[in-house]
Amino acid sequence: MPPYDIAILTTGDELLSGEISDSNTTTIAAILSAHGYRLRCSLSVPDQEKEIVAALQYLLGHVQFIIITGGLGPTGDDRTARAAARALRQPLVVNEEALDMVHQWFSRNNRRMEPSNEKQALLPQWAQPLQNQRGTAPGFRLQHAGCELFFLPGVPTEMEVMFKQSVLPVLQQKIPGANPLQQRTFKLFGLSEPKVDRMIPYRQLPEGIEVAFALDYPLVLVKLKARGNDAELRLDQAEALLLKELGDHLMARDGETPEGNVGKLLTGAGLTLSLAESCTGGLLTTLLTSQPGASAFLERAAVTYADSAKASWLKVPTLLLQQHGAVSENCARAMASGLRHTTGTDLSLAITGIAGPDGGTKEKPVGTVFLSLASTTGVHVKKYSFTGDRSRIQRMSATMALEWLRRFALQQIEK
Amino acid sequence: MPPYDIAILTTGDELLSGEISDSNTTTIAAILSAHGYRLRCSLSVPDQEKEIVAALQYLLGHVQFIIITGGLGPTGDDRTARAAARALRQPLVVNEEALDMVHQWFSRNNRRMEPSNEKQALLPQWAQPLQNQRGTAPGFRLQHAGCELFFLPGVPTEMEVMFKQSVLPVLQQKIPGANPLQQRTFKLFGLSEPKVDRMIPYRQLPEGIEVAFALDYPLVLVKLKARGNDAELRLDQAEALLLKELGDHLMARDGETPEGNVGKLLTGAGLTLSLAESCTGGLLTTLLTSQPGASAFLERAAVTYADSAKASWLKVPTLLLQQHGAVSENCARAMASGLRHTTGTDLSLAITGIAGPDGGTKEKPVGTVFLSLASTTGVHVKKYSFTGDRSRIQRMSATMALEWLRRFALQQIEK
Repeated sequence: MPPYDIAILTTGDELLSGEISDSNTTTIAAILSAHGYRLRCSLSVPDQEKEIVAALQYLLGHVQFIIITGGLGPTGDDRTARAAARALRQPLVVNEEALDMVHQWFSRNNRRMEPSNEKQALLPQWAQPLQNQRGTAPGFRLQHAGCELFFLPGVPTEMEVMFKQSVLPVLQQKIPGANPLQQRTFKLFGLSEPKVDRMIPYRQLPEGIEVAFALDYPLVLVKLKARGNDAELRLDQAEALLLKELGDHLMARDGETPEGNVGKLLTGAGLTLSLAESCTGGLLTTLLTSQPGASAFLERAAVTYADSAKASWLKVPTLLLQQHGAVSENCARAMASGLRHTTGTDLSLAITGIAGPDGGTKEKPVGTVFLSLASTTGVHVKKYSFTGDRSRIQRMSATMALEWLRRFALQQIEK
Repeated sequence: MPPYDIAILTTGDELLSGEISDSNTTTIAAILSAHGYRLRCSLSVPDQEKEIVAALQYLLGHVQFIIITGGLGPTGDDRTARAAARALRQPLVVNEEALDMVHQWFSRNNRRMEPSNEKQALLPQWAQPLQNQRGTAPGFRLQHAGCELFFLPGVPTEMEVMFKQSVLPVLQQKIPGANPLQQRTFKLFGLSEPKVDRMIPYRQLPEGIEVAFALDYPLVLVKLKARGNDAELRLDQAEALLLKELGDHLMARDGETPEGNVGKLLTGAGLTLSLAESCTGGLLTTLLTSQPGASAFLERAAVTYADSAKASWLKVPTLLLQQHGAVSENCARAMASGLRHTTGTDLSLAITGIAGPDGGTKEKPVGTVFLSLASTTGVHVKKYSFTGDRSRIQRMSATMALEWLRRFALQQIEK
């Protein structure tokens, strides 16, 4: 039996109306993945008996483990037990063990049981109830034509506990030695997806290494995947080959973020920082301060929209603003150096530009952005022409600023 | 044909490994729902030709419209076109019209086309290409055995535009007279979900009005839904009854955001604003500046972590910081009034607190936050004790600050 012979079926009108996204599938998929299993497919249907029956019949012919969530509650739109009974041609009966579980939950929680809660003990005849510590709805397990079915409530917190307690151990017993998928993610900046694709040394990669791509704008994510006993070793080799070509563009890996890594690099290098943002409206500051410990390196930051703010906090000369405008190389330079003069931080970084949708001109269209970095090595400034809507231009500008800080800190550490 | 004879198939390893949740299904489901259609089921499979073929064959026998997303990119793990050709028994051929679209995209965006991008024009023989304005991958449409299939790229922004342009109009032509679900969303702040539930005048609501809840921390979302010819009228009545009880807590509705509405209120009232953030690290500023036109009311903002920053930019007396600490009522008051003195804005708002996870003490535990607002009516300050992790405390603090600004601007307008 291949380790991916597992499917999940989630039920609920709200999953198919766009009101909520299907977090139960994501949760179960993540747990399975961490234990070396993969889902073969996931299916969602509305709270309709006919649709649940059709989905169960399809899956019974295709996989050997089915995890079903939702529709076990006390109300009229909870129809999963009835659908299961029909799909498996079993009568629906009061399950005494399940009824006990429901009674016990109410007495344990000092609450009065409603008559409607008794419905939760109506299960297909051969169902084996599964304890639900956190809610009133017991789950249940069924076997049918070589297939194992696990029915769990749809409430995410109840579902997750029950999946770990009652489903995962059975899976691990039935499919031992599952072959965990090892995976490493590399978050790259400054190259397009096709360019990254061309730079990957596919022919040199060890056998059985899969390469996958994803986008997390403006980052390109490359994933290396492998299975088997020596997966770690082969991933080590593949990673070394990949990073030989692309390491210079690596901003973060796996669970890391660019901003988190820049914060660690600055702290590690003992560098202090101050920021002056305009068109990014504080996004760079928010990214850096979303991490605990940001106050170790970030002394202060300003969003200076008005010219008077640039003049008083950043000491940008009023004449310069009049002559060159706030979106200019001269202004970016003056913002960074004025800020560093005021704060005395090792680094001062300034961003000024036009994020749109309004404010663009022929000479300075939307997307025109100047970055400037002041440090002991002088004041550097560069003009960029970014594309996309306001949000994309802001994200690209903030990420480019992080890239400047990353490269500066790395140089300092290497010295 | 029932109005729910539609299915969606999303492809991607990352959907079945728990790495990301399936936002494309949610997006399509929401658009369909708003136009009176419902999905009969949604299915996700990995980037494997065999699995995509099996899913397509299953759906071809069950529904009459299939929307497929993902796997149209230039890289090796993009296998949807090949799978479609196999499932529908058509050869895979270079589609000249699609190739033109790819070429045009690159020349329009002044970028050089990679050889791998040509793969994106390899389509099943009878495919009709669909224009993708935002990316390199054309979509395509196929008809087979009375079924309409629409293949769209997996990148959410590209997918959504193409769905609206190329799929929805066909659906509306083929299944007219669907009974649209009308829905209104009310985003409330300052009440728990059970409290909101108790305040809703259920018994007075017109017939056929459904009430649903959702959480978008720290907001509670209440949705009113109705179908039928007089849905708008009944929703008007229900809305009036709901807002009579809860209108005071309404920060935004439907597609609006609290920050967008606060921006509009400040602009409308002709009020200028300056901000001084500490524990929120610029989140409030970023929220307000994510909207175009923020420079109309926001004069400047500061994130002042270091005491020296509070002293030099906000004129907080050093002695006060030494005596009371940076997280104190006195400091919050001094930040707001010092900022207003410096900037001359109508309003100056300051936030100082402990977002955690470190920095808490017995007297000032994590979650202790002071807000202060300086205006012509004086300087107001209040202490809060928020709960949750760093991100929750930051979001709650920023939203509470928006609520202060909303109430102040409303009072000014009413005067």
